[in-house]
Amino acid sequence: MNRITRVPFRLLSSKAERFVPKSGIYPKGYVVGGIHCGVKKDGKSLDLAILHNTHGKNASAAAVFTKNKFKAAPVQVSQQIIKETKGSGINSIVVNSGNANAVTGTQGMKDAKDMTLVTDSILGNKPSSTLVMSTGVIGNNLPIDKILSGIPKLALSHLGNTHQDWINCATAICTTDTFPKLVSKQFTIDNDTYTLAGLCKGAGMICPNMATLLGFFVTDAPVSPSALQSILKHSVDRSFNSITVDGDMSTNDTIVAIANGAAGGELIDLDASSGERFSAIQKEITEFAQQLAQLVVRDGEGATKFITIRVKDSLSYDDAKSIASSVANSSLFKTAMYGKDANWGRILCAIGYAQVSSGDSVIPSRTSVKFVPVDGSEDLNLLVNGEPEKVDEERASKILESEDLVVEIDLGTGGGQSADFWTCDLSHEYVTINGDYRS
Amino acid sequence: MNRITRVPFRLLSSKAERFVPKSGIYPKGYVVGGIHCGVKKDGKSLDLAILHNTHGKNASAAAVFTKNKFKAAPVQVSQQIIKETKGSGINSIVVNSGNANAVTGTQGMKDAKDMTLVTDSILGNKPSSTLVMSTGVIGNNLPIDKILSGIPKLALSHLGNTHQDWINCATAICTTDTFPKLVSKQFTIDNDTYTLAGLCKGAGMICPNMATLLGFFVTDAPVSPSALQSILKHSVDRSFNSITVDGDMSTNDTIVAIANGAAGGELIDLDASSGERFSAIQKEITEFAQQLAQLVVRDGEGATKFITIRVKDSLSYDDAKSIASSVANSSLFKTAMYGKDANWGRILCAIGYAQVSSGDSVIPSRTSVKFVPVDGSEDLNLLVNGEPEKVDEERASKILESEDLVVEIDLGTGGGQSADFWTCDLSHEYVTINGDYRS
Repeated sequence: MNRITRVPFRLLSSKAERFVPKSGIYPKGYVVGGIHCGVKKDGKSLDLAILHNTHGKNASAAAVFTKNKFKAAPVQVSQQIIKETKGSGINSIVVNSGNANAVTGTQGMKDAKDMTLVTDSILGNKPSSTLVMSTGVIGNNLPIDKILSGIPKLALSHLGNTHQDWINCATAICTTDTFPKLVSKQFTIDNDTYTLAGLCKGAGMICPNMATLLGFFVTDAPVSPSALQSILKHSVDRSFNSITVDGDMSTNDTIVAIANGAAGGELIDLDASSGERFSAIQKEITEFAQQLAQLVVRDGEGATKFITIRVKDSLSYDDAKSIASSVANSSLFKTAMYGKDANWGRILCAIGYAQVSSGDSVIPSRTSVKFVPVDGSEDLNLLVNGEPEKVDEERASKILESEDLVVEIDLGTGGGQSADFWTCDLSHEYVTINGDYRS
Repeated sequence: MNRITRVPFRLLSSKAERFVPKSGIYPKGYVVGGIHCGVKKDGKSLDLAILHNTHGKNASAAAVFTKNKFKAAPVQVSQQIIKETKGSGINSIVVNSGNANAVTGTQGMKDAKDMTLVTDSILGNKPSSTLVMSTGVIGNNLPIDKILSGIPKLALSHLGNTHQDWINCATAICTTDTFPKLVSKQFTIDNDTYTLAGLCKGAGMICPNMATLLGFFVTDAPVSPSALQSILKHSVDRSFNSITVDGDMSTNDTIVAIANGAAGGELIDLDASSGERFSAIQKEITEFAQQLAQLVVRDGEGATKFITIRVKDSLSYDDAKSIASSVANSSLFKTAMYGKDANWGRILCAIGYAQVSSGDSVIPSRTSVKFVPVDGSEDLNLLVNGEPEKVDEERASKILESEDLVVEIDLGTGGGQSADFWTCDLSHEYVTINGDYRS
């Protein structure tokens, strides 16, 4: 067995109103779309998405995949295609939601391959030009006939480049998400104006420090495959690999970046001549990926809070990230945030059991912790150089009434490195979504 | 701030009726007891416990402590005493509950030392003969005057060796526990009859693979300090370090073993001549520690289920334990168990992201997973050699109605190693206990 264990997609949540853009500006040379093909049982929710590059046939692509040993069939197929093509000439992505095609044996591998073959064929691609993703329940074979007949329908009649087409595409990859996650922006490098658009899905089975969840972002900037892979790794480490909802790493996590060069300008590569342009676009893409990744935390299953864990003055970036991740994943910290309880002992406890590189990485007598309110009011110190502060409880409660909170941990090591990590609280609703769905 | 974030101790839960012994047989040469001294705010719950060896003044002791960097003051003081004495001549343990004396700065260190000094003095011990433990809220200084005046009262008038004295002692170390955790048993080695008694506390902030929680067990067998340390490590690895409630490692975790030799017989040491007796008592103590540790999972905050994760045919014990721990700590698996949902994809997912030693440790196509019902009925296969089974959903639901469940994971590596890990489900009640206590 294995049923759909997720609540249905609700476009009209209040979060949707706040976080789904009403318009966007999209990169040149892409068409996208989404339809209902029959994977989702309600008979109407969008469950099949395609993104296609129309600017020549030679876009660059880079991808990172889950490190889970039980890699879903579409992950294995997409990995193979990236390996074969070295990221050159990837022109399409096909995604179904409602079924993850994971732990589905030999039939699952055939189904994933067939999805790429049909997409390549109908879009006139060379072979091995399409990446495939699936998301949803683990352990059931895909209703592959519905998908394979949905692909031509979608590819021939429902792809475009309007805001609504992008919303449809972002909606069609959702599962327990309560809103589609879509971000776009424009930036300029050396007088060349480029556009980035990104979409992702995810609300549960979200775990940090691994190869992320499901998403892709595309740009009309000209970037070589190797430069794009390097930029993708850097940006994903600081975005999708720096978020958590429940600490569970999925079997299907995939993030793809595509650059088709449709906006023109000089090619950005890994060589020294690209230096400044490389840094500039890496910075843009990293900030963009953070914006996108934060939407996943905003939509975390059952989440009522959005919390930034900021670790400062660490000996290394890895230590800072490990400590931030430890706090961000603590069930006790997350339930305290849900209960609006300034129980900072739980923060200290999670700092203390983080995996760090050396005995000097965390020195209790140098560690300070404070709440940084997002309304710009004064910080609230909780611990200063290892000694507990007398905390004004009324003020602490007031700070915790806010949906957003920054917890700042200063390690005082003199190392100067820092990392941010984003998490949500652990609520009754999380347990309901993941345990009680049948009642 | 930092308030008591725990629900009050309730002796009369139905679990208490099933898991608190009505009588016991206790080792020779120990007196124990517990009183209310004023740490717990309700003015009556027991919150101060002492265990004291009356058989000579030279018991052997061994201890394991939390690996958390923010070690509580009593942990630091007890570690120092074990180091100084090499575990020889430890005759008393003093414990308060209701306040962890953790992250309490220099005052906290002085308070913990004072607790040992007063206990040594009132019980006529040599200096450095007492270990100290504290458990409860982090970040507040102890009401030390109440504790220091409670110690003589307890030591002089409330220590004994009846079943009720042991119950009082086990009760006085509890925090969110809903029942006191006490186990005793007798066994024979080479015609020498020995007795073991153990008590522990813990329901939240319980994390595997670290140096455990709060507890001690004592025996009247004659065991040298070094042999006892070796036995303690072996047994704790397979008991207290193989359980989880919420994956949070406390700042105060401590387990102490004491052996006073009051029952006579030849000294059990690490040398070859003790060989068989050493193995025999190690086996007895390990089984005993597992029994005690399982009570913590039974009493896990909000727990409605007791789940054994059994990993078989692994390349190594460490791999097996890491995989079992990964499943046992998955929030998605734990909420599915709460919801009685046989969502085995979540088990596979957690196996796949476990930290293992090599690429051959988990081979999807050799992995099998099944539910083993505790009523002795037929096993229910979920995955066989990487291929999903057609699962009889009705039967799966029936199996999941039971409070107890065994999930058996066969890695099929040919390595033959195995490990058991014990966990509970993640329920609404867990979130309520840890988040909502103020409403």
